[in-house]
Amino acid sequence: MSDSDDSDDSDDYVVAIDVRLRDIDFMGHVNNATYATYLEQARQAYFEDVVGVSLVDVGTVLANMEIDYISPIEADADVTVALRATEIGTSSLPMEYEIRADGERAATARTVQVLVDQEAGNSVPIPDDWRARIEGAGE
Amino acid sequence: MSDSDDSDDSDDYVVAIDVRLRDIDFMGHVNNATYATYLEQARQAYFEDVVGVSLVDVGTVLANMEIDYISPIEADADVTVALRATEIGTSSLPMEYEIRADGERAATARTVQVLVDQEAGNSVPIPDDWRARIEGAGE
Amino acid sequence: MSDSDDSDDSDDYVVAIDVRLRDIDFMGHVNNATYATYLEQARQAYFEDVVGVSLVDVGTVLANMEIDYISPIEADADVTVALRATEIGTSSLPMEYEIRADGERAATARTVQVLVDQEAGNSVPIPDDWRARIEGAGE
Amino acid sequence: MSDSDDSDDSDDYVVAIDVRLRDIDFMGHVNNATYATYLEQARQAYFEDVVGVSLVDVGTVLANMEIDYISPIEADADVTVALRATEIGTSSLPMEYEIRADGERAATARTVQVLVDQEAGNSVPIPDDWRARIEGAGE
Repeated sequence: MSDSDDSDDSDDYVVAIDVRLRDIDFMGHVNNATYATYLEQARQAYFEDVVGVSLVDVGTVLANMEIDYISPIEADADVTVALRATEIGTSSLPMEYEIRADGERAATARTVQVLVDQEAGNSVPIPDDWRARIEGAGE
Repeated sequence: MSDSDDSDDSDDYVVAIDVRLRDIDFMGHVNNATYATYLEQARQAYFEDVVGVSLVDVGTVLANMEIDYISPIEADADVTVALRATEIGTSSLPMEYEIRADGERAATARTVQVLVDQEAGNSVPIPDDWRARIEGAGE
Repeated sequence: MSDSDDSDDSDDYVVAIDVRLRDIDFMGHVNNATYATYLEQARQAYFEDVVGVSLVDVGTVLANMEIDYISPIEADADVTVALRATEIGTSSLPMEYEIRADGERAATARTVQVLVDQEAGNSVPIPDDWRARIEGAGE
Repeated sequence: MSDSDDSDDSDDYVVAIDVRLRDIDFMGHVNNATYATYLEQARQAYFEDVVGVSLVDVGTVLANMEIDYISPIEADADVTVALRATEIGTSSLPMEYEIRADGERAATARTVQVLVDQEAGNSVPIPDDWRARIEGAGE
């Protein structure tokens, strides 16, 4: 999902997002913080479908998030998030995203997510079977 | 607010944030997207106090946001956001932030905000008196 | 949707809700305030589908909302909201709701919504064509 | 906090709420669902100050919530919530609220909150020392 990417790249995992009235801010567009929630929804769907686990059951935390806001999203837009995993580390899972409104690129984003032991609080290695499923989905 | 910064730098504008129960997610910490809301609250306070205008009355949009999550924020933490403007452009106002929980750095962030004409939708130059007040506050 | 109602009543308009991770609170269930957002989503869908207008374009305000919380909603539940209009007034539109999680009643709710002139701020009569469409949908 | 109440009644516990830009909806006012979050914030403050426990640490669930919306809340309003406990039951704690914007009544609300065993899921009796503190605060 770099600038030169074809946004119809079949490797992308695409999630439809239901825009809520509550997402719309006083300027009439989706609030900037809500984009982070859309990314979270996309990650949750990806983990359930591709990795086969729910983010509610495993411990992951965000280490970094960057969002480039390209054009505002209207309340009645059809919103999707396309995402892909990139360069899986020992405990960290970087992802790239494109948020689309009515098929047009509205924002791009990158996150680095880290797998943690919820009890101990420290990072733990990404299991091999997760790695295989993520790579199979088109890293 | 780079790594070498003294976080007690007197140039920083500091805003106290009321953490809400609603900000806490299923893992028991402030949700990652809520950090963006804290940054927005800090910007709003800065604009009211330093620039003398409300973000509700002027048109600004985010062009970019980056957050480094350093340590989770607990529900009962005293949270503050320190921010400063950096390198004001023609229409763009970059800012650096440090989110602190009980005085400790919990996250750092950077945003680029652009002043826009809400009717026309295009960017407009930052007024000279805003620039003077922002620079006076310690750019 | 009184206690004696058959919850499969064909007069009910039913809206599917995408539960978001962000809706889940520190106790692991959908936060109580988020139920109000689900009701708002259901009203928005009803207005678009039945009345043919978007709540973003017309001025309506809530006058009253009451929610009975029956059982907590889990993060992975399939949530729907069934709603119907009841006893349309001159400017007010009362509605009854049932929020269902995996098909089971999780909450019931009632709202009174009032049509207002957004400029003037006062209530205005519900147009006859709205009334006809709402009654046609099974008041 | 019935209609005949003096809103300066010294028995009321009053909590200041920081209105966030994110609370403001597309109509320019505090979103209806956010009122429920303000009530939750007021309950949390009440529990910490009066009962001496945090809602994060004890298990309580809402059984019922009713809100009467009286006048919209603007983004720059000074918001407070006055609340009092009424008729404590075995496991249930009913409360009455008044949400004020710039000192004027903007909404009234009632909730019934139930103390539960978070593991077992069933209701448990309100401890005698809680009862004494709540009654001492002016039920």
